[in-house]
Formats: sequence, structure tokens, C-alpha cells
Amino acid sequence: MAGTLEPIQKMVNELSHLPGIGQKSAQRLAYHIVSMPLEDVRNLATALWQGRKAIRYCSVCGNYTDGERCAICEDENRHNGQICVVRDPRDVAALERMHEYRGLYHVLHGTLSPMDGVGPDDIRIKELLTRLQDSAVDEVILATNPDIEGEATATYIARLIKPLGVKVTRIAHGVPVGADLEYADEVTLSRAMEGRREL
Amino acid sequence: MAGTLEPIQKMVNELSHLPGIGQKSAQRLAYHIVSMPLEDVRNLATALWQGRKAIRYCSVCGNYTDGERCAICEDENRHNGQICVVRDPRDVAALERMHEYRGLYHVLHGTLSPMDGVGPDDIRIKELLTRLQDSAVDEVILATNPDIEGEATATYIARLIKPLGVKVTRIAHGVPVGADLEYADEVTLSRAMEGRREL
Repeated sequence: MAGTLEPIQKMVNELSHLPGIGQKSAQRLAYHIVSMPLEDVRNLATALWQGRKAIRYCSVCGNYTDGERCAICEDENRHNGQICVVRDPRDVAALERMHEYRGLYHVLHGTLSPMDGVGPDDIRIKELLTRLQDSAVDEVILATNPDIEGEATATYIARLIKPLGVKVTRIAHGVPVGADLEYADEVTLSRAMEGRREL
Repeated sequence: MAGTLEPIQKMVNELSHLPGIGQKSAQRLAYHIVSMPLEDVRNLATALWQGRKAIRYCSVCGNYTDGERCAICEDENRHNGQICVVRDPRDVAALERMHEYRGLYHVLHGTLSPMDGVGPDDIRIKELLTRLQDSAVDEVILATNPDIEGEATATYIARLIKPLGVKVTRIAHGVPVGADLEYADEVTLSRAMEGRREL
């Protein structure tokens, strides 16, 4: 019986579902994987599958973790008076890379988007309110993305939280460091002017 | 015990070994995979691992296959008088996409590269000579890449085969179809002039 390339086609098919990987990249990756030592492919496949199985949401903040609570929530050196609200765990990773913020997080796992049918009950807003009742939080920093949905979500949450007497802040908008003014869009420039500070 | 992000780190580590996937892309992919349904990740990991295990070299031409011989070698409608010699299975896939060539292939799995210690015995040249002895091949088309190693490999093989009385040809070099002359390098242009044909 003549052999086929079906196993490679299956790889291409699965790989091309990943974000940023089109048909051509998937093909290139599949041919590379087929040429890798068996042991290396086993490690790759195992890392993906076992990794996915091991990861769950931190029961407190919703960040990714392989335990009951994430390392940040369990870290007694973090200030539990601040909660930074973000859309997803990727944003936690981004903020942690700056090595400056020492408070806690709250991951919403989405942003309000009426067009896509995502309402307040579909993201972790209720859990945030519960945390505010139980704890000694004095500031909630809204760090959702500076796009329409992120702004709407921040505004919605701010309105819910302010009556509880908790300080609510929003991350600053402005010109990215290292960027060229010439290429900044008008809205960003206008926000940068609005947010100007005396030196 | 505080949870960690180690499973994600392992994913990032494995993914960043793949060609064209840097640290940032690997991170983006890992966070995406972690957010995928379990079932989808299982399918992905299975396709990679089972696919890698199933694929081997065709015992005749060295192309990838999941059987003893590849579909091309087993296809009785292919002309067994022509063998097209390429560096790796990816090149077979590329040539097959043109749907024109109806002969057979021979995959070298490498090109001669003295600098990297790859000599004639490290690529499938011996197997090619064996095929020429046994069969009724009347043309060997050398389709290794038009780079230094590909040229050297083609020249080496041509010298070995010519004494056997087999016609040896080399694919044409020239300006790629759809490309702009202005951007073609001098060597390509010179080859394009050399290989000009009367219309």
C-alpha cells in the first residue's frame, strides 16, 4: 500500500488554527517538526498537553496558575491594598515584566462587548466586588486596554465601585516612550496633552 | 502551596525552539494554547506526536511517507524515466504544487557542505547511484537550491552520473516570474541573460 502525507497534513491543519500562523507557516513548521528527533517532538507535545491540563485560574484573582492560588496572591510581600484590573492573564505577565507594581491583580477574562453578546455577568466583575467586600483594598487600578471595549469596561466598573468608597484609578494614556510624535494618532496626542504634568 | 506559571514557561521554552518563533511569539502562542479548550489542545499535541511517529522516509526516494514507499514512487502513472534530485521533502512538496512534473524524485536530505562537515557519504548520493543502476532512468534533473552548496552538490552529482550515460540536467536560473528586474541581483540577472531563449 502506498504511503501518504496525511500525518503531515494533520499537523498543518492543527498548527494553522493557532493565531498568527497561516497555511504557509504551518506547513513550514510541520515539515520542521517531522525532521526533529522523536524525543524533541515528544517534549514539545507533552509540554503543550500537560501544560494545558495543569493550568487553571487562581481562585482569588483569576490569573493562570498550576495551583489553587497564584504566586502573586500567595506572596505576602505584595500590597493587598491595591488591585489592578486587567482583561486577561497576558496583561498580568506584561505588567509584571515592569517589576514595579507590588499590588495584586484581578483578571476579568474579557471585556464588555454588547456587539459580541458579552455582558457584565460574562466577565469576572462579580468576583471583583466580592473581593472588595472581604478585603482591605483602598485602590482599584483599571488597566483594561485603551480601546473602546476596554474603556467601556473601565467606566462600568468605576461606576460600580465608587459607591463602595474605594479609590478608583485608570492607567494613563499618552505617547508611548520611544515613539515618534509624528506617528501618534490624534486621540493619543490629545490624551497626552490632557494628562500633561508640571516638571 | 502557591501555584506557579511553570507549565506555561515550559510551553514557551519548547515553542521558542521552532524556526521563526522567537521568545515573544512563543509567549503569545503559549497563552493562547492555555486558553484553548482541552480537547483542541489534545488534538494539537496528538497531531504533532502521532504525526512525527508515523512519518518515515520512503525506502526508494527518501521523501516523507507513512508507509514503506511514498505515494509518488508507488504511482504507476509517473514516468520512471526521470528522477528529480532535491535537497529535502519540502522541495518535493513545492515541486508537486506546480502539477506539471510527472517523473520521480530523489531526496538527498542535505547538501554538500565541507564547512559543516557534510560530505558525499552524509547525504543520499549512494542511494541515487543504486537507483540508476537498477532502473531505466534516462534523465536526472538536479533541482538543488541555486545557492553555493546547492550548486556544488549539483556539480558533484553531475560528474558522478555522466559516465553512466544518463542525461543530467539542471533547473534554469533566472528572474522569478512576477519579480521586478530592478530588484534582481546581478548574478540572477546574468544567469537570466545566459539562459535566454529565442521566441
